[in-house]
Amino acid sequence: MTAPARRGRPGYDLESLLLVAVKLFNDRGYDGTSMEDLSRKLGITKSAIYHHVPSKEELLRLAVDRALDGLFEVAESTEALDGRAIDRLEHLVRGSVLVLADRLPFVTLLLRVRGNTKAERAALARRREFDHLVTDLVKQAEAEGDVRPDIDPAIAARLLFGTVNSLIEWYRPRRGASPGELADAVCKMAFDGLRA
Amino acid sequence: MTAPARRGRPGYDLESLLLVAVKLFNDRGYDGTSMEDLSRKLGITKSAIYHHVPSKEELLRLAVDRALDGLFEVAESTEALDGRAIDRLEHLVRGSVLVLADRLPFVTLLLRVRGNTKAERAALARRREFDHLVTDLVKQAEAEGDVRPDIDPAIAARLLFGTVNSLIEWYRPRRGASPGELADAVCKMAFDGLRA
Repeated sequence: MTAPARRGRPGYDLESLLLVAVKLFNDRGYDGTSMEDLSRKLGITKSAIYHHVPSKEELLRLAVDRALDGLFEVAESTEALDGRAIDRLEHLVRGSVLVLADRLPFVTLLLRVRGNTKAERAALARRREFDHLVTDLVKQAEAEGDVRPDIDPAIAARLLFGTVNSLIEWYRPRRGASPGELADAVCKMAFDGLRA
Repeated sequence: MTAPARRGRPGYDLESLLLVAVKLFNDRGYDGTSMEDLSRKLGITKSAIYHHVPSKEELLRLAVDRALDGLFEVAESTEALDGRAIDRLEHLVRGSVLVLADRLPFVTLLLRVRGNTKAERAALARRREFDHLVTDLVKQAEAEGDVRPDIDPAIAARLLFGTVNSLIEWYRPRRGASPGELADAVCKMAFDGLRA
């Protein structure tokens, strides 16, 4: 396999530049990172960065969309499924863990977005849309009698994705459990509980 | 009941100053908040702040200890219990949710600590100690046959407290579920699962 052709200045293409930017945003916070910081980290001038991308906000948008696009692909494949809502919900949870493991820095950034810029507010709006899908599935599964009726569906949805999202705090790929094992553990615990 | 006597300058005692500082640290990040920012927010001079507390790091230490002391009180009451490890684990999870709900800004700050200062590293060390207690209880419960054997105890412990800790992202006291209802929902879901 040959390496894909690089666009723009030698040394960095948009993809590798984005990866460095996302790492920096995650380490120092998006607000706390300037294009100056990024240029120093990359060892290239700011104008070399602007050759690839018009603004810091555009880097944020590209990064959080990488996470959101993955999550919405899972949501679409979930909606295309037939069968009971509880099984579709489990499919959505499992797929979300796999997206998180595969796109960890991007999902980490997404989950830390605060809403200070237009790109951040757009990301928060898409997150809310995703959360509604989850809550609707929990409600549907409860109506079908497959979810215990003694937990509020909105709380159940938040706890489910609270568990998934908490993985960014400790999960590191290539160390310990594989993404598949991790997704299994999350689904077992969330749907059937820790108790034997 | 009469109000407790205020020490120091009129307007703020250490407690009310600490609450404002913690809110600011949570909003802007500990690193991103200066004593200058805090003095502006409080409407008092920096030297009035130093009358109460010698440094920003001391404010951090007081705040994260408020969270950690609460969690370790629950851990101690857990260790004092007799009976099966699974029940002690559930006691620990329930108590931790109640501490989180009761001391939300302090626990939020604790969970965002990164380890750049001595106070932060001390907090991280106490957090690790707490995490070991949780993992030990899960292992003990598994040895007693009360935890499903098909999830790694270390992963189970992380998922349990991942779920608990994720509450800081959305739970707001005096809105929606009471702390007790929240603790019930977390325990039901974590120990017995969402499935009916």
